[in-house]
Amino acid sequence: MEVTKTLAKFVVESGYADIPEKVRREATRSVLNWLGCAVGGCRHETIDCALAALMPFAGPAQATVLGRGERLDIMHAALVNGTSSHVFDFDDTHLKTVIHPGGPVASALLALAEHRPMSGTDFMHAFILGVEVECRIGNAVYPSHYDVGWHITGTAGVFGAAAAAGRMLGLSAQQMTWALGIAATQAAGLREMFGTMCKPFHVGRAAQNGMTAAFLASKNFTSSERGIEAPRGFANVLATARNYDAITEELGKTWEVALNTYKPFACGIVIHPAIDGCIRLRNEHKLKAEQIESVALKVHPLVLELTGKRTPQAGLEGKFSVYHSAAVAIIHGEGGERVYSDAAVRDPKVIALRDKVTAAVDKSVHEDAVHVAIKLKDGRTLEKHVEHAIGSLARPMSDADLEAKFRGLADGILSRAGTDALIKLCRSVEKLKDAGEIARAAVPAAGSAKRAKAS
Amino acid sequence: MEVTKTLAKFVVESGYADIPEKVRREATRSVLNWLGCAVGGCRHETIDCALAALMPFAGPAQATVLGRGERLDIMHAALVNGTSSHVFDFDDTHLKTVIHPGGPVASALLALAEHRPMSGTDFMHAFILGVEVECRIGNAVYPSHYDVGWHITGTAGVFGAAAAAGRMLGLSAQQMTWALGIAATQAAGLREMFGTMCKPFHVGRAAQNGMTAAFLASKNFTSSERGIEAPRGFANVLATARNYDAITEELGKTWEVALNTYKPFACGIVIHPAIDGCIRLRNEHKLKAEQIESVALKVHPLVLELTGKRTPQAGLEGKFSVYHSAAVAIIHGEGGERVYSDAAVRDPKVIALRDKVTAAVDKSVHEDAVHVAIKLKDGRTLEKHVEHAIGSLARPMSDADLEAKFRGLADGILSRAGTDALIKLCRSVEKLKDAGEIARAAVPAAGSAKRAKAS
Repeated sequence: MEVTKTLAKFVVESGYADIPEKVRREATRSVLNWLGCAVGGCRHETIDCALAALMPFAGPAQATVLGRGERLDIMHAALVNGTSSHVFDFDDTHLKTVIHPGGPVASALLALAEHRPMSGTDFMHAFILGVEVECRIGNAVYPSHYDVGWHITGTAGVFGAAAAAGRMLGLSAQQMTWALGIAATQAAGLREMFGTMCKPFHVGRAAQNGMTAAFLASKNFTSSERGIEAPRGFANVLATARNYDAITEELGKTWEVALNTYKPFACGIVIHPAIDGCIRLRNEHKLKAEQIESVALKVHPLVLELTGKRTPQAGLEGKFSVYHSAAVAIIHGEGGERVYSDAAVRDPKVIALRDKVTAAVDKSVHEDAVHVAIKLKDGRTLEKHVEHAIGSLARPMSDADLEAKFRGLADGILSRAGTDALIKLCRSVEKLKDAGEIARAAVPAAGSAKRAKAS
Repeated sequence: MEVTKTLAKFVVESGYADIPEKVRREATRSVLNWLGCAVGGCRHETIDCALAALMPFAGPAQATVLGRGERLDIMHAALVNGTSSHVFDFDDTHLKTVIHPGGPVASALLALAEHRPMSGTDFMHAFILGVEVECRIGNAVYPSHYDVGWHITGTAGVFGAAAAAGRMLGLSAQQMTWALGIAATQAAGLREMFGTMCKPFHVGRAAQNGMTAAFLASKNFTSSERGIEAPRGFANVLATARNYDAITEELGKTWEVALNTYKPFACGIVIHPAIDGCIRLRNEHKLKAEQIESVALKVHPLVLELTGKRTPQAGLEGKFSVYHSAAVAIIHGEGGERVYSDAAVRDPKVIALRDKVTAAVDKSVHEDAVHVAIKLKDGRTLEKHVEHAIGSLARPMSDADLEAKFRGLADGILSRAGTDALIKLCRSVEKLKDAGEIARAAVPAAGSAKRAKAS
């Protein structure tokens, strides 16, 4: 059975007209979400460290560091932007595999678009194909591959970046087969690194290494032609079980990007129903913290197992506290990155409300559900049952939700006008003559970043 | 048990005076052998492809492409030189693990030496420590890690490069722990790629990625502090059995570089006894091909299993032919890269003698032994029993052998005078004020390469 060759041939021969409108639309939403995350994460310490370490070795100024404006060679730009896009753990999720599909693929592709101009249509086509490749390979080895200890966004992502970049370089089927093989032999990233700067680094490295694979293959740098399925290939060496049909069947008929989801809140996904419920009650009743006597949550068991921190001391710990999350949802009406800052966690008003939140495990509550009961000082009790949290496949974020998330992430980095323009560019990406415009628009106008921050 | 931290602490605290003279001497021989291989491989198609693909993204001219003279940023130089050093499969071997220790470590370190000047003593110290780290990690996971399908020079090599470069950057123990973790999460390279350009690429990538890990750690880029031993760390995820004592015991008391070996011949190690025996009979009796009626070899079973090609058509196939190897050993008195060219394999004189060679399996013959019987047209039969082939641990190559190998590799690339000077620099590396001199001397003088080739 020829798995790698079959996949390579599909990527090389795919026609954009064969991709349904609904799939393209979801892909555009994926790119917007990825871009917001990359811009939002660009000032994180992880990015500062990476740039300080690697800038002395960077090549010509070919591509933009999103949100910042430094220009690096495309390989370094892909590394930095990919890292930035995952640093908040706020990017997209292919729920079947827990792959974050956008980072590896879009980070490679947008950097490449600045170096080798491509139309918005070609950009989106390559993006969809890259996501298809990484998620299909993920489907074939999940869950055993993840259970062994591999960070699947790193290991599957490198294939996606190779496929997308290879498509844009016009690789032949033979070269694409090599590109996937060169990707296979660079697949890396351990789950042990979760909680450290290496986790987002995996995403950047997948983008960079996958693009490297494509460029090498374009010069006829050879690899095995069975990089995925050979006895000593990727699927056998890095997983204990595998299903190649998930890679080769219904190619061109089903599209994995259509299954992509986006986090509305910048924290562990198990807390999302609680935040959703609190925000809805807040907005429906124009609640103020001062009115509240207590907040009682009935939650799925995983919520307390993973996010039961009663008294978080730092922003990062706040992401593992359902109590903090419920409090900021009521006070600020959101669950974005800024409500997980150190300052937000230490805000006396937040702490006061947090201490009034209780959470009880209820085994009848599903993973994307919650029951919220807010008792007010005036004696009333407001209740909300959330069946499917916002951002789940059953209740996807609307375009407006995605825009609001994007604005929250870009706030303080881009000006309002710059953010407006960038959202507009992303929405109409298929009409762009030069997709690289998006990257060049994703930087602060001179002096505007500080103004935006101060506003 | 703190494996990663213990190893990091050792690397950071090691003193050069604690390393025995014999160990340092073997390390110098390892560097000489590595350099010869890197220079010799520099015109290989693999290097041409890699440079064509990646030069457009290279950074400042910080370090030399050995044997060629292009100057790249140190990361790309490490990649290219590491790849070049393994392209002939002629580099060193740590027999306990089949790691080729020199490539990942020296390729990183010499590039770094051109960017951040270091003394020859510091260079050799870091080299020895890098080899120690990669081979100890190899010892801990071999053979299960290799059996699973990992190319151990790639996967263990990245740790060696990180340790060596990290030592030169003066990392703290904390930073060195991170560097080893960042290395762990980049460990990659599949045995499936053997026989393709990706095999040597693994070595170059290990050098580059390991050095990247060191630079990132130097800016406090964090990773797990248990990258090697954690339940989801390197040794658990990439191997089915492991022995951490092999990493942490007798640190500073035993030295893996002392166990390094060097291939005298540019082909599969199982043919080495036959070549050795044929060369010795040739030289002892001043044999000419025309005198010979037949050549009968008694060999270990693996010889015919791995290298039984009767009629090789191309140079690379010649490396898997004990018949071709015996013929060129008698005709040319050597087993260097040039007797495995396409032309050498097609030479009618070689073919005529090759057809007179027979090989019979004899289970009593040890893996590094052979029995050779050459029947002459004048009726005499000359016999030679080789108990341990040259290059084995029991019969190491002499310094003169290593020099001759180096000269064979550099021939046609460097001038004779340039080769002499380079060997001298390597021999006295510990006295150099600036180890980077070695790299700058490992390039053809303008115009001399062609003259050398023509001569």
